Amino acid sequence: MKLNEYDPLDPLETDLYQLTMAYAYWKAGRHEEEAVFDVFFRRCPFGGEYAIYAGLEEVLRFVENFKFTPEKIDWLESKMLGCDKGFFRWLKGVNCERIKIDALEEGTICFPRIPTMKVRGPLAIAQMLETGSLTLTNYPTLAATCASRMRLAAGWDKTLLEFGLRRAQGRDGGLTASRYSFIGGFDGTSNVLASYLFDILMKGTHAHSLVSSCQSLADLSSTKIKRPDGSEIEFVQRVLDWRDFVCQKLGLLKTNEGELTSFIMYAQAFPGGFLALVDTYDVLKSGVPNFLAVGLALLELGYKPVGIRIDSGDLAYLSREAKAQMKKISEALPADYVAWKKVLNEQIIMGSNDIDEEILLSLKQQGHEFTGFGLGTQQVVCAKQPALGGVYKLVEINGRSVIKLSEQMEKVTFPGDKIPYRLFDRENMPILDLMTLLNDEPKAGVTVTCRHPFVETKRVQVLPSRVMPLHYRAWAGQRTRPALSDAKIRENVISNIKAMRPDHLRLLNPTPYKVSLSESLYGFLHSLWQDNAPIAIIQ
Amino acid sequence: MKLNEYDPLDPLETDLYQLTMAYAYWKAGRHEEEAVFDVFFRRCPFGGEYAIYAGLEEVLRFVENFKFTPEKIDWLESKMLGCDKGFFRWLKGVNCERIKIDALEEGTICFPRIPTMKVRGPLAIAQMLETGSLTLTNYPTLAATCASRMRLAAGWDKTLLEFGLRRAQGRDGGLTASRYSFIGGFDGTSNVLASYLFDILMKGTHAHSLVSSCQSLADLSSTKIKRPDGSEIEFVQRVLDWRDFVCQKLGLLKTNEGELTSFIMYAQAFPGGFLALVDTYDVLKSGVPNFLAVGLALLELGYKPVGIRIDSGDLAYLSREAKAQMKKISEALPADYVAWKKVLNEQIIMGSNDIDEEILLSLKQQGHEFTGFGLGTQQVVCAKQPALGGVYKLVEINGRSVIKLSEQMEKVTFPGDKIPYRLFDRENMPILDLMTLLNDEPKAGVTVTCRHPFVETKRVQVLPSRVMPLHYRAWAGQRTRPALSDAKIRENVISNIKAMRPDHLRLLNPTPYKVSLSESLYGFLHSLWQDNAPIAIIQ
Repeated sequence: MKLNEYDPLDPLETDLYQLTMAYAYWKAGRHEEEAVFDVFFRRCPFGGEYAIYAGLEEVLRFVENFKFTPEKIDWLESKMLGCDKGFFRWLKGVNCERIKIDALEEGTICFPRIPTMKVRGPLAIAQMLETGSLTLTNYPTLAATCASRMRLAAGWDKTLLEFGLRRAQGRDGGLTASRYSFIGGFDGTSNVLASYLFDILMKGTHAHSLVSSCQSLADLSSTKIKRPDGSEIEFVQRVLDWRDFVCQKLGLLKTNEGELTSFIMYAQAFPGGFLALVDTYDVLKSGVPNFLAVGLALLELGYKPVGIRIDSGDLAYLSREAKAQMKKISEALPADYVAWKKVLNEQIIMGSNDIDEEILLSLKQQGHEFTGFGLGTQQVVCAKQPALGGVYKLVEINGRSVIKLSEQMEKVTFPGDKIPYRLFDRENMPILDLMTLLNDEPKAGVTVTCRHPFVETKRVQVLPSRVMPLHYRAWAGQRTRPALSDAKIRENVISNIKAMRPDHLRLLNPTPYKVSLSESLYGFLHSLWQDNAPIAIIQ
Repeated sequence: MKLNEYDPLDPLETDLYQLTMAYAYWKAGRHEEEAVFDVFFRRCPFGGEYAIYAGLEEVLRFVENFKFTPEKIDWLESKMLGCDKGFFRWLKGVNCERIKIDALEEGTICFPRIPTMKVRGPLAIAQMLETGSLTLTNYPTLAATCASRMRLAAGWDKTLLEFGLRRAQGRDGGLTASRYSFIGGFDGTSNVLASYLFDILMKGTHAHSLVSSCQSLADLSSTKIKRPDGSEIEFVQRVLDWRDFVCQKLGLLKTNEGELTSFIMYAQAFPGGFLALVDTYDVLKSGVPNFLAVGLALLELGYKPVGIRIDSGDLAYLSREAKAQMKKISEALPADYVAWKKVLNEQIIMGSNDIDEEILLSLKQQGHEFTGFGLGTQQVVCAKQPALGGVYKLVEINGRSVIKLSEQMEKVTFPGDKIPYRLFDRENMPILDLMTLLNDEPKAGVTVTCRHPFVETKRVQVLPSRVMPLHYRAWAGQRTRPALSDAKIRENVISNIKAMRPDHLRLLNPTPYKVSLSESLYGFLHSLWQDNAPIAIIQ
């Protein structure tokens, strides 16, 4: 990864109130008080019951480089009129050497209310990490989760490519989308810079404009093609002969000549990588026959055509018919053309055109012949739910646990420095996640009461066969270990997904996965709540 | 604007197929052929009947700096195996000196199918501008349109602030959102870097964590405050006295002391900018009374409190009750406290909490007392429709008009180099937009037939009082004029919106605005269509 060319998040890219609060703490002499903040989300995205935690490595890069430049501090000082100069002097020395971060492994499957990350350190500094921590994990977690759902909908055997740069929120929106789509389980991207920066496989062939740019064979500058050995040989006449063959076998009179010309031109440029977009005029009457004509001519010269992409129309039907046309032609070849037949029956058939999770499921249900899909808009903007509501909440200050009440119960926070665990059954399947207070650790082979956070009567006795602490110390004034590669995080995602009970992962009406509190944490939460909530007087 | 610190889009941030197509054109010796591409969208976002065109200035910066670095070309060469070296040599010299761009003025109100931009130039170079042109206008146009709808829903007299960085698609998603929210009609942002780079007003006060961090008055390091003249004076006792007054007048026993402490702390830091978040515990029983206690103490010392923000609960109700509490306290003051009463009755009341267009409309309908709103997620991700489907289509090559057919009629393109006009009536209101061929210009005072693009029977005779060409030459190998400032573009947006008939702008079921073809363009489109579409044979 060329991360040296990908700047970490600028500490100034934050909400102004982080700086005004930092100033208020500093002014009150409270900026050094030790605080703990939790990062968590309240509901899983897309109506699902899981999420994939992503973005931590970028948070660590942000923390590692958290330093305001003198120019930006001067600028801030010119904007925050009336604030003491001492604050800006202090700001110049701020860094994250005294910050500690506990977090889930990036790529872990995760659930509501479990802190994905816990930040401990001087109040004003930890406060200023809020916006960056959220910006760098909210959308990444959303996009990786969306990608994993697309993967589940498409099937593990399908190629999934991300094509959505043009619909992203600007340049970095596109890069972030490509990166976390890959991490969430995609195979590649069309985004060249994402490939350059993050080592993601890049894929792409041609667009409709290549086809539209050709009207007739006269547009070709050469009728020849380079053979694998480098010599040139007549190509166009071969293609035309094969077109006659294909049209005759498929019962067609002619195909679009401009399209055929563009395919020839593309094959001349990429004889070993011929994948054609076949829906510019008519998939079955022109696109696939033209593809086959060029493909057979390539086979004749020792090349293997790669496949087709269909970008409009009735996708399931067109994929089946396209496959059938390929099969029909392979069967029409002489019996001893075994290798050719094999190639024709193993062509890539890519589908695209605003594909989302529901379309993937519907295609599967209808029966289709796609070997993979290009997903753009729906993956990149996560259209089914385009934002994840991850938050960053103060839970402890100076050793005192704090609770944030709200007019809405669901916005109440769980106070204190909590330790999350995942409990496994005898089959090594996760049973539930449990949050505890310090020194309240559940143990394998020991029954533990796990309580619903809000509903007094909902509790369960669990006898775990294995207990896994969910957090690791990711930052202790410095990184605690080298950065994980995106490929390694992607492996984490896939193994996490494969280790879950499928009913929790189901795309429609999945079974909720339990997130519980230990008895002591439950008691602590509710006593603090009682103490802090004002009593309404109804008169 | 510090645009020197905001890199233009890297030419490598593109879809791979732009480069493979460029290679195919180069290989065929066709890369220098003159091509025209249209950028347009097919449907207005959000179920509306208009859009605000945005992003052009960034496209021009992209075009101005379009140059592949040698390192990136070397990397590309290592990935595009088998391609001729000559292509990469050619790529090193590529720039946009021979490109011409006609476009709408940035900030113009625009409609489906009218090219927002027309790119003319060498085929391979113009092709490589596709992804950048779309990435830099699709989301900006969407976000500016979304912002203008929020503006229409909230009313022109309300303050609109964008708070959504943490929910954006990464760092640049956040910057782009802040910038185009402002352009679309917002007043400011919480995003400090966006303010730094783009000169957008920044706003922000404090979050719930400031409140949660305080438990009691013992948390204060000082009980004093600085007076406007710089001297220090006892503050806490004054606040406590005023709290007694407020509680008595509002019939309350006490307020939350931690919250009161945090407000005091915040006022000590920003005595002239005291705006308090009042929903941490209970808006009416604690938040507003505490705000009033601190506000009155500030008034006593010669400061003016600024206002409150409500971030949860029944917003319309709470805003009215908060306003009423302020009014009640102002009325409880002695009759000669005229200035104080005025200040209390002119406090800012900001609302936030996942506000969208529907909530703004509902608040208006219910009656509310907010003076402004903070919009985050819903504005930044444009949740109602999180992507705009702008496309970039070849319409002419070597002087020949081309049409792109498709399995779906709505994906058919309008061929050729078209000139768009806006026709105005006697009241100087836009009647419709008309696309024509070259030398087919409509004239003021001359009746012109305007045809629906697809429905033969839909046509209208228009006698325009004024005719405005919609495009201007924005790039002719170089910029044709200095860049517009964001503030100027924002003015364009507002004057465009105010000049439209309100029924086209209506948020629910608006009247469609007509986009028409001239007789000659209509005839040309349909003859080309007939010529190119294959005839189905049903047997």
